[in-house]
Amino acid sequence: MIFRQLFDAESSTYTYLLGDESSQQALLIDPVLESTDTYLQLLQELGLTLAYVLDTHTHADHITASGKLREETGCITFLGAESQSSCASKTITDGEKISLGQLTITALYTPGHTDDSYCFIATNAGQTYLFSGDTLLIRGTGRTDFQNGNAIDQYRSIFSKLLTLPDNTWVYPGHDYKGWMVSTIGEEKCHNPRLQIDNEGKYAELMQNLKLPNPKMMDIAVPANRSCGKI
Amino acid sequence: MIFRQLFDAESSTYTYLLGDESSQQALLIDPVLESTDTYLQLLQELGLTLAYVLDTHTHADHITASGKLREETGCITFLGAESQSSCASKTITDGEKISLGQLTITALYTPGHTDDSYCFIATNAGQTYLFSGDTLLIRGTGRTDFQNGNAIDQYRSIFSKLLTLPDNTWVYPGHDYKGWMVSTIGEEKCHNPRLQIDNEGKYAELMQNLKLPNPKMMDIAVPANRSCGKI
Repeated sequence: MIFRQLFDAESSTYTYLLGDESSQQALLIDPVLESTDTYLQLLQELGLTLAYVLDTHTHADHITASGKLREETGCITFLGAESQSSCASKTITDGEKISLGQLTITALYTPGHTDDSYCFIATNAGQTYLFSGDTLLIRGTGRTDFQNGNAIDQYRSIFSKLLTLPDNTWVYPGHDYKGWMVSTIGEEKCHNPRLQIDNEGKYAELMQNLKLPNPKMMDIAVPANRSCGKI
Repeated sequence: MIFRQLFDAESSTYTYLLGDESSQQALLIDPVLESTDTYLQLLQELGLTLAYVLDTHTHADHITASGKLREETGCITFLGAESQSSCASKTITDGEKISLGQLTITALYTPGHTDDSYCFIATNAGQTYLFSGDTLLIRGTGRTDFQNGNAIDQYRSIFSKLLTLPDNTWVYPGHDYKGWMVSTIGEEKCHNPRLQIDNEGKYAELMQNLKLPNPKMMDIAVPANRSCGKI
């Protein structure tokens, strides 16, 4: 598997490039509009054809590059079936598998941060990679106070789905604000303070009391992302 | 090998944590003072003891955490023999090997960005990792216009030492300003515009004409880094 993690400093967003060595096909998870040209440069330099763009959810903090990348490359764009977008090429549902040459990416429906949140799983050479979007962050979890977010749903998504993955699963999040890039399921089970809470009611209480300001870009980003990044 | 790449957004600096699984000993390359507490947190959570801190050179754009980490953990700090620092625990020279449990890190003297610039090489499970400091960047090279930098020396360091490593060597740089995190020697040979220049005279001419402003922190950082991060 060809693999690159990329960072947008403005929104502290991680974008992931996964490529299949045999077919030289690639996909991008959560690309950021402003970095479109650098994705195209990297794909070309690595000799890869962009087949798919996957967004983990309708983002409120940056604008997706999915639409622009589709215009430039003819790739297929995916967004969860629960999103209110009518412009993605295809919608994904829980358990759906996406084939990229010899690689298979499995979508997991993980509502909570938003009601259209998905995580993606890839396995290569016996190692599992979890792209956890804004559901599970390194030593944190995504906020649940807008876009039909729900803390109880998030607790269940994390505990019933993500934490059942092998402890050595790499966790690649949608963001990090302190410069950490990767974790493991085992590490998060032990050291993520929010995962030490032992019932969903207490978790919901904690999440309801965070009182975070709305993301700066929310009023622009959400409608733009429902239109595949058109602004 | 336990391996983590960490990012300081303020100075766009990459810090690297390498750990040996058998001895649970670790080292940090180019740690940033302001992130000291998060390094200590991560080391503790991964069950690692900090044995060494290595700085690739006397930085002009951030202050090293080496002194503070030595105070906190008793680790040994390393800096090139050519540096004007008298406070590092040990100085390193070209070809020197540093043992970390079953891991061996080799120092390569690569003057050019500064006259005390080193790169570090680690090999694990048949894969070579190059920590290229500010000598070789992703699709770029480090500036050569201060701290006894020298473009001819840099050209020779890169072409005679770094580019002789296997093409699949991972290149982990000291900085990146566009959100790219890793490259390979093969990729840089093909796609780094500065490595397409076929003689050192032309390279020196290009580097002399960059006319970059001095780093914001230079006047504070250089003397602080000669004192292991004391400000």
